[in-house]
Amino acid sequence: MKNDLLLRAARGEETERVPVWLMRQAGRILPGYRKIREQVKDFQELVKTPELACAATLEPVDLLGVDAAIIFSDILVVPEAMGLDYQMLESRGPLFEKTIKTQKDIDALRIGSTQNWAYMVDALKLTRKELNDRVPLIGFAGSPWTIFAYMTEGKGSKTFSVAKSMIYRDPKMAHALLNKITQTTIKYLTDQVNAGAQIVQIFDSWGGILSPESYEEFSLPYIAKICDELSKLVPVIAFPKGAFFSAKAITKLNCAAVSLDWTVDPKEARALLQGKTLQGNLDPCVLYAEHTVIKERTHKMLEQFGAKGYIANLGHGVYPDIPMDNVKYFVDCVKQYSGH
Amino acid sequence: MKNDLLLRAARGEETERVPVWLMRQAGRILPGYRKIREQVKDFQELVKTPELACAATLEPVDLLGVDAAIIFSDILVVPEAMGLDYQMLESRGPLFEKTIKTQKDIDALRIGSTQNWAYMVDALKLTRKELNDRVPLIGFAGSPWTIFAYMTEGKGSKTFSVAKSMIYRDPKMAHALLNKITQTTIKYLTDQVNAGAQIVQIFDSWGGILSPESYEEFSLPYIAKICDELSKLVPVIAFPKGAFFSAKAITKLNCAAVSLDWTVDPKEARALLQGKTLQGNLDPCVLYAEHTVIKERTHKMLEQFGAKGYIANLGHGVYPDIPMDNVKYFVDCVKQYSGH
Repeated sequence: MKNDLLLRAARGEETERVPVWLMRQAGRILPGYRKIREQVKDFQELVKTPELACAATLEPVDLLGVDAAIIFSDILVVPEAMGLDYQMLESRGPLFEKTIKTQKDIDALRIGSTQNWAYMVDALKLTRKELNDRVPLIGFAGSPWTIFAYMTEGKGSKTFSVAKSMIYRDPKMAHALLNKITQTTIKYLTDQVNAGAQIVQIFDSWGGILSPESYEEFSLPYIAKICDELSKLVPVIAFPKGAFFSAKAITKLNCAAVSLDWTVDPKEARALLQGKTLQGNLDPCVLYAEHTVIKERTHKMLEQFGAKGYIANLGHGVYPDIPMDNVKYFVDCVKQYSGH
Repeated sequence: MKNDLLLRAARGEETERVPVWLMRQAGRILPGYRKIREQVKDFQELVKTPELACAATLEPVDLLGVDAAIIFSDILVVPEAMGLDYQMLESRGPLFEKTIKTQKDIDALRIGSTQNWAYMVDALKLTRKELNDRVPLIGFAGSPWTIFAYMTEGKGSKTFSVAKSMIYRDPKMAHALLNKITQTTIKYLTDQVNAGAQIVQIFDSWGGILSPESYEEFSLPYIAKICDELSKLVPVIAFPKGAFFSAKAITKLNCAAVSLDWTVDPKEARALLQGKTLQGNLDPCVLYAEHTVIKERTHKMLEQFGAKGYIANLGHGVYPDIPMDNVKYFVDCVKQYSGH
């Protein structure tokens, strides 16, 4: 492999410089993506067309010079594979026609298998071939709690009060659904690895809406199960967004790296997550600012995390209206500063 | 005063039992509120009609038996008083026609004064009279950062990327606006106290979207200024929602009490916020569950916080679709358990 910085940093090995990539690096910030998007009727057609998903995945590697490709897809592939269809509404996010309300609804869901995400397998194989070992290919999935939140709520929400009320009203049923999602996710990520993903990230986008006690009962144990299985195959990055309140429990995860949002202090993270590679965590909004500000903040972040066991990234996905030029400048700042 | 539990608990004094109230206790959960709401054309008409605001404020005292009344109003009274009008859209939240983009926009804002919130003064005077010293009357305002977020973004947002980009792009301008909001808020809260508010709460609803560094530059210093002025008059409760990452800085605020959201562990809060009365922090979603669950969780919360220097509350406002019966049961649980 020409550039395996990400894999070595994830494993805690010394690297010549800090690797850098961005969550949502393949997306609306890029001109090629916007052209690809015009060729399809909706977001899902893009996700399900391997050639297009591959093209979207490669664009940031070529254009931004990032140290990793992350397969273009969506965390909602999993509920769909389990039998729950959704639409992705432009600028409003996902919408499920049916939601999970009862044990009967849970029983009606299947544990997904390869045939339900064959397009993903094809996209990964094709992308891996096209990448030609330039940089590692990242696979990913949502955390079971995050998928549970969408399956019960049916859409995004400020409070996720429908999802959360289930954990208090019927915890047994909640665990039944979480177990089924977890089984599917393990199969899904294993297939991703077999198709070419060299590292995987688990996005717990909605763990932060839980109390620490609920988080450690309804989210973390299921992430742990996935880590236990997947870590046998590849390095795993866990991204417990907004859930650093459970840092002491997170550090026990069987994962190589923990991704941090921008509300986490780098020094506190180093103290509480010893032995883990850390990833993150620049506030995406810094990339709206002038280059001098981007440079200053990026350098500060690099200093605070230190060069070893560190992957530079934002604290969340890049926002679609951030200028591509600023994103590229961020990538360059990391490379130049940490290369010395 | 017949029941001054809240005031004594806020000051850290011994109380016969733990006081309890709820954020948004006057609202859609109550039948009387829904009837009042039908009498007016919009939310703002209700806020601006002292008799109706008074009736809405008193209803939960009568119906739920809470230990405090909080004046029925909205944090967006402040930007409106400064010259920035908004509409409150049903189920979508506030919408400002104009937003603050430039220093010229800031210069055009006035520092509000009594005439701009005369209806609020009248509502407080009337409510204080009608309350007849049954329970204390709480006044409130948004934190300057939270008001800044609405004034620049123009509406609610998942990322508040417009608001946040200003702090990175033009920090000097951001501070100019924050200063103006702070000056207005101090006058506004002082007027509330003079009109009858016996304690005030500062809602920093959107502090949690900032990084710790930005929080301690753009939110906390302005809350501190308000605390310094208002604490000369009445006890102040600060509610830094989602910003417990800055607990060490929060504990230095000149306030009597700190309100906590449900992501904060009570024992950690006691350790980091020594000397402060603590308020909170039950997950509002617990109130969707059966009574046995509400009781168990409430008792656990009361045990974890301990009886002294504590005000029972939710970790955020009560959600509008939570059954009133469950809210009342929560209040009763606190009273019964902590009264022994």
